[in-house]
Amino acid sequence: MPMASSFSTVRLNLNECSYPIHVGENILVETGRFAHDVGFIGQAAIISDTIVAELYAATVVAALEDAGFKTSTHVVDQGEHSKSFTKVESLCESLANHGVDRYSFVVALGGGVIGDLAGFVASIYYRGIPVIQVPTTVMAQVDSSIGGKTGINLHTGKNLVGAFHQPVAVVADTSTLKTLGHREWNEGFAEVIKYGIIHEADLLAQLRSGIASLPDLVRRCVEIKASFVSADERETAGLRVLLNFGHTLGHAIETVAGYGTLLHGETVALGMLSAAQISQSRVGLPEVAVEEIRETIQHFELPMRLPSGMSQDQIIETMFSDKKFVNGHIRFVVSPCLGSAKLVDNITVDDLKLALAILEPTTP
Amino acid sequence: MPMASSFSTVRLNLNECSYPIHVGENILVETGRFAHDVGFIGQAAIISDTIVAELYAATVVAALEDAGFKTSTHVVDQGEHSKSFTKVESLCESLANHGVDRYSFVVALGGGVIGDLAGFVASIYYRGIPVIQVPTTVMAQVDSSIGGKTGINLHTGKNLVGAFHQPVAVVADTSTLKTLGHREWNEGFAEVIKYGIIHEADLLAQLRSGIASLPDLVRRCVEIKASFVSADERETAGLRVLLNFGHTLGHAIETVAGYGTLLHGETVALGMLSAAQISQSRVGLPEVAVEEIRETIQHFELPMRLPSGMSQDQIIETMFSDKKFVNGHIRFVVSPCLGSAKLVDNITVDDLKLALAILEPTTP
Repeated sequence: MPMASSFSTVRLNLNECSYPIHVGENILVETGRFAHDVGFIGQAAIISDTIVAELYAATVVAALEDAGFKTSTHVVDQGEHSKSFTKVESLCESLANHGVDRYSFVVALGGGVIGDLAGFVASIYYRGIPVIQVPTTVMAQVDSSIGGKTGINLHTGKNLVGAFHQPVAVVADTSTLKTLGHREWNEGFAEVIKYGIIHEADLLAQLRSGIASLPDLVRRCVEIKASFVSADERETAGLRVLLNFGHTLGHAIETVAGYGTLLHGETVALGMLSAAQISQSRVGLPEVAVEEIRETIQHFELPMRLPSGMSQDQIIETMFSDKKFVNGHIRFVVSPCLGSAKLVDNITVDDLKLALAILEPTTP
Repeated sequence: MPMASSFSTVRLNLNECSYPIHVGENILVETGRFAHDVGFIGQAAIISDTIVAELYAATVVAALEDAGFKTSTHVVDQGEHSKSFTKVESLCESLANHGVDRYSFVVALGGGVIGDLAGFVASIYYRGIPVIQVPTTVMAQVDSSIGGKTGINLHTGKNLVGAFHQPVAVVADTSTLKTLGHREWNEGFAEVIKYGIIHEADLLAQLRSGIASLPDLVRRCVEIKASFVSADERETAGLRVLLNFGHTLGHAIETVAGYGTLLHGETVALGMLSAAQISQSRVGLPEVAVEEIRETIQHFELPMRLPSGMSQDQIIETMFSDKKFVNGHIRFVVSPCLGSAKLVDNITVDDLKLALAILEPTTP
């Protein structure tokens, strides 16, 4: 007998469409109903990774088949290296070989990598078929499954290829988070901390005092992300870009470390520490706020120092080669006070060097 | 000194945007101005094939650089086999290595393959950068460069992967058509004949009596294509689908023949002969109209018979495996009288067999 499931639904409203984000415990079993509710009639192509598929594919397949959908399951290796053209091609061929057609839909079952990869496949297969995102990590539930950004990596850079392809529904089953490893659990909270810094200061204290209700926390994060995306779907209005707090430096650190060495959330934590430092020196973020950010990051055992051997020069060179600088300045998201953020365009290499210095492994 | 150029401009209006389609002799030299006119400031990435690049890349590069654009040129082999994930990946890496960024734009210089391939690359690079289509074949100028359909092939089928990505401008220089081979020139007129059948009966007689002005003819075709696309951008309103007259069978013939054996327009010609036969038997297209279609196809030395060794059974099997049939019926575009077309959904295997019989190489 399936466990009882209860859930709440956040609606993400866009100009041309809107879609439901369902959050709750044990709601994978409702996937078939949710697919039915958005009007699907075709075949479901579940795309997942080996580890997540082992844990949850059977549940999702049964839910979809009970609701009358024919299914096929397509599995890739877990990890960032699966965000490649090679995997996109083999997935597309696999979909075609299983009779997935223009009336079918994709179910992206997994973490951020699967959401990005399967979402991108859905965006280009038959020039675009619908996708339901079923995120199974904290990071994917509170952030990456929402908002329609999909993509894969080039040798030359992360997420350089992709599409905006909004899901038709998101199913965030918080009970799936219980099977996450310690490190994967913690990394997801980097994005939650980010929401605290840029939008809702209370979140930081809540996080440190212990999570009363995981579904409530995820739902609140989903609401915040949805509000940014609704207001600025294509990141052209200067609002969605604020979600990049900590990410500009984080991405550079991730590139220098090599994909997979540090988890995405771990590099975001490092990036947020530096961004807090820049916020303090350039837009007056109070010392007490910087300290609160540090404490919250520490609470989730996220890294506070660069891996040994990685120098700030390498990181800044990466940002140069990434053409992040224009005339010696860089566009950068800062927080003038906890719970708010803004974009400035006058951050210099010296600002970055000072901010990276606090991450040096040799700093006492 | 550059030759004088004169051109006319058709505007394709869509819900969210509109774009100019410039048609004229010797207008490649205006590419820089056209790019400037649509507001570009970034770098131009010219994507072309070896043969077209040899003929025209220098002209386009000079035009763009004279207008102040930095350029890079990215060349692939000519032919349908370049519409592959392998080529998409190598082009994306090449763009990244040349510093092409989100403020850059793609110039698709070539025939239908290049338009589809470069348009698709533009649609996914940095989640989409703009593309200017510069078609250099009849087929690309009158048809494929307009309307935003881009795509590549899977092993399992043609154009199964792609995106809708409207160009920001189209530059159709009819003087480039003079370097086409005899067969490539003729195949392009299959699409012109199609416009005659489905929309403007007079075109057929005009074509047979000789082309008075190539720019005028291309512009008229562009207007027809633009009107269908404007009214039904995503092929959801039952109008754009009428442009598939002759293409349902044509695609199946192309698949059975193997990509590259017959040119696209040649398979469309065969498909139109069969579609004319079905139109006669099922919706009363007069015999005199069928004869006029045959004469016009013959006028351009397009094939009237299947290649020897290709049986109608193979073609129908391909349509079955392509899931074109639903409950033994197929959706099919027919013409009840010259200059009009409609979609019917009750065409049977027997209808197709009768229609393919007229293409049998053994038929006297």
